[in-house]
Amino acid sequence: MSTSSATASVQALSLQRLAIHTITTKPWSLREALEHYRSQHVQGISIWVEALKSTPPSTARRWIDDAGMHVPALVRGGFFCDRSSRVRQSRIDENRKLIEIAAEVGAESLVLVVGATPGVELRRQRGWVEEGVQTILADAAQAGLKLAVEPLHPMYAADKSCINRLREARLLCDQLNHPLLGVAIDVYHTWWDPDLHREIELLGKSKRIFGFHLCDWRVPTRHLLTDRALMGDGCVHLKQIRLAVEAAGFTGWNEVEIFSEEHWATDQKSFLNKIVERYAAC
Amino acid sequence: MSTSSATASVQALSLQRLAIHTITTKPWSLREALEHYRSQHVQGISIWVEALKSTPPSTARRWIDDAGMHVPALVRGGFFCDRSSRVRQSRIDENRKLIEIAAEVGAESLVLVVGATPGVELRRQRGWVEEGVQTILADAAQAGLKLAVEPLHPMYAADKSCINRLREARLLCDQLNHPLLGVAIDVYHTWWDPDLHREIELLGKSKRIFGFHLCDWRVPTRHLLTDRALMGDGCVHLKQIRLAVEAAGFTGWNEVEIFSEEHWATDQKSFLNKIVERYAAC
Repeated sequence: MSTSSATASVQALSLQRLAIHTITTKPWSLREALEHYRSQHVQGISIWVEALKSTPPSTARRWIDDAGMHVPALVRGGFFCDRSSRVRQSRIDENRKLIEIAAEVGAESLVLVVGATPGVELRRQRGWVEEGVQTILADAAQAGLKLAVEPLHPMYAADKSCINRLREARLLCDQLNHPLLGVAIDVYHTWWDPDLHREIELLGKSKRIFGFHLCDWRVPTRHLLTDRALMGDGCVHLKQIRLAVEAAGFTGWNEVEIFSEEHWATDQKSFLNKIVERYAAC
Repeated sequence: MSTSSATASVQALSLQRLAIHTITTKPWSLREALEHYRSQHVQGISIWVEALKSTPPSTARRWIDDAGMHVPALVRGGFFCDRSSRVRQSRIDENRKLIEIAAEVGAESLVLVVGATPGVELRRQRGWVEEGVQTILADAAQAGLKLAVEPLHPMYAADKSCINRLREARLLCDQLNHPLLGVAIDVYHTWWDPDLHREIELLGKSKRIFGFHLCDWRVPTRHLLTDRALMGDGCVHLKQIRLAVEAAGFTGWNEVEIFSEEHWATDQKSFLNKIVERYAAC
């Protein structure tokens, strides 16, 4: 075995749990993403619905299978909150459609960003979320699909998610108590939480860690939405959190999910190389 | 009594607990702020250190007394966090100087934004904060000055404050247990917190609510620092929070603190009028 192929083999091994969200390399089509990830020995791809815009799920599935890739998650369902019950019902219908699509592309889970409506009490909105998730659980069960509730950072409490800590996501899971309902832990949203390690432990005990998302918190952060950093370029103790998640029994994918105007504007191949390098380091 | 002076008297009454932070009308000098606030029957002014740049505290005190104004707080001390113990000591010295200045201008309290150093574990940093606050408590006691720890929103956890929930501020107060140590509750930083109402109650029970800061959370928020909204222009249930704070026994000032490039760029007299109007409504 030559030195370079030995290196490649070690690298492939260390990458065996790495997945990348298509949004991370937003300029690429799904087909480009599959091709480039695979060429870098990345075996997991979490698919944003936006990446399926011009590709039927069945075609996507064929490409994914041909590339020998796995799909930890379809991203993102949810958005259960609205003052109008009619709108809330339509959101539930949309989630049912997403569950079908997730099954078609062979995703292991559907990530739920639960939504928020400015000005409505957050507690009341969490009631809508509970109703919505409960309703679609039957569909998820039929499809054999996991639902992963992802708490978003409190800076998104007004209009994107009324669940802003792992604790509220865990309480929702406890309430509905279904083996296909769990939580996606994203370091970007949760790193600051004084209860982070305790919550990871509690979620681990009830086997509810369904996803683990990686990126970093840039200092200073210049934009609320699209200024996430590459692992190692921010202030988050990634390795410490990863070890905690693993100690809690999580053996699933480590999903890199970076929204960054800065990185989207660069050459995506070099960016992908950096992702792979930095992943190995954390 | 003419109708207009009757109206003025009612208005003055309803404004009796209104204070404004000088940063809110940043384009104005301290002298201009005092003059304009007073002309609008505002009786409280919380003074940012920046507003004292070109005015000695003794002069400021004379202006304040002449205007018959009160100073709920000098803003902001704290910033106890740094890897270097030498730097941490210099921050403590700066706080001591601020305590003197607060006493000179007749402030009731010094607001402490506790600081944060990117990349250091938040829990470890809270240890530095505890040491720092404990050290300056003796100075505050000598000056008869209250210290009000202000938790900042989790979006500032990386570089501005390692205390991001009321809970951690309360635990710090419990730990140091001094009658001059309490908490400033700012709706901007805390409105999203699922434990907000419980924490207000607990802080009230131990008589540790030392300040109440008002503004609103704009949807969408366009900048992490300087896009706060005027009361009523955002999604926060201000009245509900104010009533909770009052039910918890708080009888102090309601301090309007708005950082907003948008509002700073407008005519400050009209802005002040709007502040007074909106305050009366919430």
